[in-house]
Amino acid sequence: MAWNETKLTATGRIITDVKTRTLPDGTLYADFTLAANERRYDPDTKEWVAGKSLYLRVKCYRKLAEKVAATLTVRDPVMVTGRVYTDKYETDSGPRSDLTLDAKCIGPDLSLCDVVIERKPSLLEPAA
Amino acid sequence: MAWNETKLTATGRIITDVKTRTLPDGTLYADFTLAANERRYDPDTKEWVAGKSLYLRVKCYRKLAEKVAATLTVRDPVMVTGRVYTDKYETDSGPRSDLTLDAKCIGPDLSLCDVVIERKPSLLEPAA
Amino acid sequence: MAWNETKLTATGRIITDVKTRTLPDGTLYADFTLAANERRYDPDTKEWVAGKSLYLRVKCYRKLAEKVAATLTVRDPVMVTGRVYTDKYETDSGPRSDLTLDAKCIGPDLSLCDVVIERKPSLLEPAA
Amino acid sequence: MAWNETKLTATGRIITDVKTRTLPDGTLYADFTLAANERRYDPDTKEWVAGKSLYLRVKCYRKLAEKVAATLTVRDPVMVTGRVYTDKYETDSGPRSDLTLDAKCIGPDLSLCDVVIERKPSLLEPAA
Repeated sequence: MAWNETKLTATGRIITDVKTRTLPDGTLYADFTLAANERRYDPDTKEWVAGKSLYLRVKCYRKLAEKVAATLTVRDPVMVTGRVYTDKYETDSGPRSDLTLDAKCIGPDLSLCDVVIERKPSLLEPAA
Repeated sequence: MAWNETKLTATGRIITDVKTRTLPDGTLYADFTLAANERRYDPDTKEWVAGKSLYLRVKCYRKLAEKVAATLTVRDPVMVTGRVYTDKYETDSGPRSDLTLDAKCIGPDLSLCDVVIERKPSLLEPAA
Repeated sequence: MAWNETKLTATGRIITDVKTRTLPDGTLYADFTLAANERRYDPDTKEWVAGKSLYLRVKCYRKLAEKVAATLTVRDPVMVTGRVYTDKYETDSGPRSDLTLDAKCIGPDLSLCDVVIERKPSLLEPAA
Repeated sequence: MAWNETKLTATGRIITDVKTRTLPDGTLYADFTLAANERRYDPDTKEWVAGKSLYLRVKCYRKLAEKVAATLTVRDPVMVTGRVYTDKYETDSGPRSDLTLDAKCIGPDLSLCDVVIERKPSLLEPAA
């Protein structure tokens, strides 16, 4: 339970492998890097060109980690939503910081890939 | 192009059929209603109980409408992001208003359903 | 504590009086209606015209309610962020629903009004 | 005009001076760093403790830059909303990247400071 979490939703592509491991407490964990690339319209050339990019380290836990590892891979177009914070750490070449997102929900971006949903009997019950 | 659009991301279930039609100008259109249901923890009974719900009329256009119609159906768990506004209209029983979301991106919620992504050759090129 | 709350940030003007009352449990409460109006650029007339609007019933509690009641009034330009849900209720002319936002944070929109901040000694301590 | 911008709203404190300058094209510019600090409840000690922090470089332009420079200073509690991206640059100790927010709207956080709004005659017209 936390106060003043910052939420973010981003749409982009996975630009690394999806890495999975089991944390010391037994929790399944997966992460990947997402690049959300802007496209800007250039009125002079009348073409869309690359704009700024946002890079996010996306962390998943438990059931979501299991599903992400089983479903997604590098280059897949996805949307993610969750809580963001700055992860600071030391490297041999000095301090670094990454923008990190603890994912609450992830889905493949339907407008950029073909998806088949395998519905289970439990999902066929009323949504109530 | 617009100034002061309000953005929203919601995670929930589709509670109506996905309806599709072609608009007078030839644009493909699809819509459905999404219910985003909160769950609250009751410290007395130590159980999760239903909280408030947010109901959204989700509108999709063009490629996204085509993919939504081909992929999703009632009861599917999805995440949607887009621009929200209040749609006011008259009915026989007086004026009504709906919260409407023009969808920018929609994806099935990976933590709540099994998904197979059918990757096309074009998606196998470098994400760069 | 809740799971699957939907967050929203909107920028607009207060279009009602700010109403205050004390709830049965002693909590101070205030509410107002916010209109977030889009502006769209019309390439034919080369002018900005009114677009869609989002109407939100904004509810404030405790300290925030006290500050809102002491500071804001109808027509003030503000930004609000919080959790949204659909409030359903009966009226003499049938069922109605309002989009409601439980405010976490509210501030006057600096780009549209002049503001003087009265800093207290406690705010002059290090931000840590 | 851009496609796939990522929006973010954060609530926190200004932890640097507000710096202002005029860009080569004559645009007024201001920036500061915002720290959005989470607080987490520790059920063992029954106290709120510091959680993760999000650090954002907030950039303002034109009228908003003018108002921010005239109104805000280090340690002020504010809310900001805008478009985020990763700013990459070289330093003597290697490459660095900052999370940057181009502000659309900024306001002092009413729940954490006292504010007086100076209303102008133009603001006393109907909000329509």
